[in-house]
Amino acid sequence: MLTLYDNLDSGNGYKARLLLAQLALPYRRIELDIDKGETRTPAFLAKNPNGRIPTLELEDGTFLAESNAIMVYLAEGTRFLPADRVERAQALQWLFFEQYSHEPYVATPRYIIKHLGRDHARAAELPWRIERGHQALRVMETHLAGRAYFAGKRYSVADIALYAYTHVAHEGDVDIAPYARVRDWLARVAAEPGHIPITQG
Amino acid sequence: MLTLYDNLDSGNGYKARLLLAQLALPYRRIELDIDKGETRTPAFLAKNPNGRIPTLELEDGTFLAESNAIMVYLAEGTRFLPADRVERAQALQWLFFEQYSHEPYVATPRYIIKHLGRDHARAAELPWRIERGHQALRVMETHLAGRAYFAGKRYSVADIALYAYTHVAHEGDVDIAPYARVRDWLARVAAEPGHIPITQG
Repeated sequence: MLTLYDNLDSGNGYKARLLLAQLALPYRRIELDIDKGETRTPAFLAKNPNGRIPTLELEDGTFLAESNAIMVYLAEGTRFLPADRVERAQALQWLFFEQYSHEPYVATPRYIIKHLGRDHARAAELPWRIERGHQALRVMETHLAGRAYFAGKRYSVADIALYAYTHVAHEGDVDIAPYARVRDWLARVAAEPGHIPITQG
Repeated sequence: MLTLYDNLDSGNGYKARLLLAQLALPYRRIELDIDKGETRTPAFLAKNPNGRIPTLELEDGTFLAESNAIMVYLAEGTRFLPADRVERAQALQWLFFEQYSHEPYVATPRYIIKHLGRDHARAAELPWRIERGHQALRVMETHLAGRAYFAGKRYSVADIALYAYTHVAHEGDVDIAPYARVRDWLARVAAEPGHIPITQG
């Protein structure tokens, strides 16, 4: 059976949990407390030297890190990864956009506020991070003109990756009210069969 | 023919150039001056709403963004992307590691120093970015123990992605001298058939 090293508050962990639920794949979930350093112990660093969840342990004991790589691994050959070569590359494009241009600005403010607190020195990063979060949301709003989903014509791992932190952006003071197409898309994703909330393990 | 919107100084552009050279694929290269805002014009934003190079235009006029997505697209079915499902996922893992944990810390200091200058306000970011750059290099050094390449047993897109900015890390004050395995791996990558330098268009 697959084992997912996870943290219930993490949007990156949620990507794996949501896809596993929609694929109806059974797995064992091991909760790690990021705030207590449980992802930086020697035992966990032996599984993932980068010290991050989610990390997926395959049946043969191989460890796979990086939420979006885990999703592509799980989604290969299913309806969650486009079969067409160009559409598959476009799904990957949005996965890289999410990690480089979206997550550090839409997700990290939420981490700072929820996990470190508004009194922490890193709260000084909030203004520029939130500003770049809005840049990412504007790119998403532009792309969704005339489109229901991010890659191809169907819901895919690209939508799961971008949904994970966009739907809780307000917890990091990133207000999605100005982005009507993004809000409609969030509702479409939440209405997909087998959808689960971020709080569900 | 493929068209690559590119900038010769960019490690992200170099990833595409190096792989295209090693695949012996002909393409047309269009140089954009990032410092003069040529990636933020309305004409270019119509091609890539995120306003970044590299952007690849396919034969049918489709635009594909994100250096690592471009590489996977080009490498599918070739020796540069592992055929084994787990090894392919591990290659993707390193591509996401590169964009999230490596590029902002190994490449951005080089951008600040070379393109903005040491007098620019953003030079204040150098200390913490360089520190995290060393964290990324330590993860790479650990992974290379007993391994010649990052994913599987052969040179792949994972090596190209990590080579692109690691081999010029010193231009951003990130000193790779302490990382013997990383230095040996850089030499192996540079000795691959069809290798070209970052300065070659």
